[in-house]
Amino acid sequence: MPYVNIKITREGATSQQKTDLIKGVTDLLVTVLNKSPNTTFVVIDEVATEDWGIAGMPVHEFRNHAQT
Amino acid sequence: MPYVNIKITREGATSQQKTDLIKGVTDLLVTVLNKSPNTTFVVIDEVATEDWGIAGMPVHEFRNHAQT
Amino acid sequence: MPYVNIKITREGATSQQKTDLIKGVTDLLVTVLNKSPNTTFVVIDEVATEDWGIAGMPVHEFRNHAQT
Amino acid sequence: MPYVNIKITREGATSQQKTDLIKGVTDLLVTVLNKSPNTTFVVIDEVATEDWGIAGMPVHEFRNHAQT
Amino acid sequence: MPYVNIKITREGATSQQKTDLIKGVTDLLVTVLNKSPNTTFVVIDEVATEDWGIAGMPVHEFRNHAQT
Amino acid sequence: MPYVNIKITREGATSQQKTDLIKGVTDLLVTVLNKSPNTTFVVIDEVATEDWGIAGMPVHEFRNHAQT
Repeated sequence: MPYVNIKITREGATSQQKTDLIKGVTDLLVTVLNKSPNTTFVVIDEVATEDWGIAGMPVHEFRNHAQT
Repeated sequence: MPYVNIKITREGATSQQKTDLIKGVTDLLVTVLNKSPNTTFVVIDEVATEDWGIAGMPVHEFRNHAQT
Repeated sequence: MPYVNIKITREGATSQQKTDLIKGVTDLLVTVLNKSPNTTFVVIDEVATEDWGIAGMPVHEFRNHAQT
Repeated sequence: MPYVNIKITREGATSQQKTDLIKGVTDLLVTVLNKSPNTTFVVIDEVATEDWGIAGMPVHEFRNHAQT
Repeated sequence: MPYVNIKITREGATSQQKTDLIKGVTDLLVTVLNKSPNTTFVVIDEVATEDWGIAGMPVHEFRNHAQT
Repeated sequence: MPYVNIKITREGATSQQKTDLIKGVTDLLVTVLNKSPNTTFVVIDEVATEDWGIAGMPVHEFRNHAQT
């Protein structure tokens, strides 16, 4: 009975993409560990880019740096 | 000093129901483990149904299947 | 289909106490929000006291201060 | 830059199976959302069966019920 | 490659304050544990005060009590 | 009343380093957001390197790649 939490930046993931993530992760747990899908939970969190930091700065600033 | 995180699907839980969850969980920790309520945190997350998966599909789709 | 995570300091909680927490939280979600127990997960994490901080210090140090 | 946390019951998952989970989830995020693998984290938590509850009871008790 | 999650009540933290948190936590991990900032993630969650409980009640109620 | 969770790979962080993390994060929340230290929790999780993935592989394998 796995529980999976996926955190991504909020940048327009569609309902279909979320559905694909849920299906894909669940299939993976069935394939690799023989888990039952009926007791597999997946929770997706979308996080605003100002709330996500990497390399000591918010994501959007990080990307500007990376492009320089 | 427990920390409790309750994740539920976002489906109209009222402020009173949240208050009841917070009180109920805190009382439980006091009763079972003799924890101090003053250092017991409870955080409730409401998750959109398209962001919660079970059995390899989003919750709303799962419910449609279950009703068939 | 709630997911509840309970974090407590590791200080000898027994299997029976954990069972009581699991049952108590699940009952609470049934009572307050009419959730189905069959799709309610509870995960308990025990955290070493040196890994839990409050008031800027590890728990065991905090308790020494509090007793002074 | 996704962060994925996979919680499973501690029941002997091998290093290879964990490697397969890490690779599988990362590939999924690349395929579905075009995420960069280099900034994709996956953290696996194995949880003792007495610390995981479903249907108001610990997992091992739940399985005994289910088999009856 | 640390992952840090900071949960605070939603009470008007500014983008600058969030940037300061992200920078401060990352610097701390570099200083104390010599971690690489490039693989250090920080995720900030703001939680509505009705969703955060302490001492068995929601935060806003707790503050009213504390002021009495 | 913030709650901070710090996840690091398990590689011999000392009690003193954990104490420094707890103090440093708490001070940061006091300085940046004027939070009360008495209601600031910090929980540190050490994760085995085989349970932490980056770039689609476990940390130890990733480091071998990076050194090549």
